Amino acid sequence: MNLFKDRQSLKAWMSACRNRGERVGFIPTMGALHAGHLSLVEAAKKQCSRTLVSIFVNPTQFGPGEDFAQYPRTFAADQTLLEEIGCDGVFLPEVATIYPPGGQTSVSVEPLGSQLCGAARPGHFQGVATVVAILFNLVRPHAAYFGLKDYQQFTLIRQMVDDLCMPLEVVGVPTVREADGLALSSRNRYLTDEERARAPALFRALTHAQELYRGGERDPLRLEEEARRLLLASGIENIDYVEVRHGATLIREREISTDPVMLIAVRVGKARLIDNRLL
Amino acid sequence: MNLFKDRQSLKAWMSACRNRGERVGFIPTMGALHAGHLSLVEAAKKQCSRTLVSIFVNPTQFGPGEDFAQYPRTFAADQTLLEEIGCDGVFLPEVATIYPPGGQTSVSVEPLGSQLCGAARPGHFQGVATVVAILFNLVRPHAAYFGLKDYQQFTLIRQMVDDLCMPLEVVGVPTVREADGLALSSRNRYLTDEERARAPALFRALTHAQELYRGGERDPLRLEEEARRLLLASGIENIDYVEVRHGATLIREREISTDPVMLIAVRVGKARLIDNRLL
Repeated sequence: MNLFKDRQSLKAWMSACRNRGERVGFIPTMGALHAGHLSLVEAAKKQCSRTLVSIFVNPTQFGPGEDFAQYPRTFAADQTLLEEIGCDGVFLPEVATIYPPGGQTSVSVEPLGSQLCGAARPGHFQGVATVVAILFNLVRPHAAYFGLKDYQQFTLIRQMVDDLCMPLEVVGVPTVREADGLALSSRNRYLTDEERARAPALFRALTHAQELYRGGERDPLRLEEEARRLLLASGIENIDYVEVRHGATLIREREISTDPVMLIAVRVGKARLIDNRLL
Repeated sequence: MNLFKDRQSLKAWMSACRNRGERVGFIPTMGALHAGHLSLVEAAKKQCSRTLVSIFVNPTQFGPGEDFAQYPRTFAADQTLLEEIGCDGVFLPEVATIYPPGGQTSVSVEPLGSQLCGAARPGHFQGVATVVAILFNLVRPHAAYFGLKDYQQFTLIRQMVDDLCMPLEVVGVPTVREADGLALSSRNRYLTDEERARAPALFRALTHAQELYRGGERDPLRLEEEARRLLLASGIENIDYVEVRHGATLIREREISTDPVMLIAVRVGKARLIDNRLL
């Protein structure tokens, strides 16, 4: 497995891949890899002849008081995992490699970037869009793979790629879950045992809403109320949002049209947990 | 000369050029072509094996009350000029080809985009950066050519390309002037004969400042005052700004370090005129 720390070695490898006619699949991550990330690599391997993972804890997507400093950094373990599943390259840049001093440019996707998680985390999605644009331009992959667990992020990246005519395909990969339904997340390790026991309520609330929807319920407020009730009953009281939105655009609709998604964000102890489900 | 109106035909031609190993030089314009634009094509022809011009009057870089509706559209004459100098392709998209409905993404370069012309034209440089990013991603040229007459625009595009790691070279081409020093601009046609006679004062003011600088004057306020005095004496009273800034970064310095540029923006009749000169 190739390890790239600077732009030059990455570009040289990518040029060689392109010249050989290889299709390169790219998976941008913040490291602390788990089975969810590995499923992205597996998806890329199925569609591409080469896979490249970036590991970069992006400072610009953390707000003041957020967990940038504490965010888990497990580079050695990450590299072992990637080597084992046959990833071809890892890009591990320093902050100054992505953001040299004097930078002034940012990419915004509005209004989507200010809604849902963007309302609670001002500037977060501008940081995400900007770093992903930089990584796409450095790597120039044929396809990029994102977890549907971060559904708003996936939708926003796809919107940015469409709007800016970036020449690559954006692929969403289904959420990987624990046996009890908890979506895998690098932030799950912030949970105490007691908090971990409460956390599967997100998935139960989503499943409950899905059952009601499939049973004919079409009122978004009613679906949200039911999911919220189940969260509260499970001891999850710090609810950021429970929302039903259009599955493709994340536009809020008064009446559900087609393919709705329910999105949930809560705080459990030190962890901010998010999850979603297409109903 | 090839004429492309949609994305697909443009991409097919660009792919063929790339596959033949051609170096493509790109000149984004708003049409109403004059000798200044043609000098950009000439510069591209010297460095590249293929040249492509886009003609697109970009609505997002005009503010409310600005001259979007009146901006000269002279497509037939433009095409003749480009054909005559041996340009290889023209991209002439509709607004919906560049901005399909539902777009949400914008590119900002701040603080540079809010200063100088950006202060008088809020949103202008966000519109410029966004459309240029879209065009760069659609065309994917090896190099792009911009007139140094729009010095702030050139600096801002170069900053965006550096910050976002866009894989192309940005080349600045010297301003083309009339015999009396007036910088060529599509907006010069807004001038009445009487206004046209006053307009060369911009160049005289810049030249005067350059002489003072070369004579040892290093106080930016003094240089600005002298240029302003000359503009006023020439009957140009509606002065937006006269500023000396760092030539590479456009940062305002209290004491001139090296390679300063003087930038001027004024209003003469219906025309907003800008000009600049490296001192």
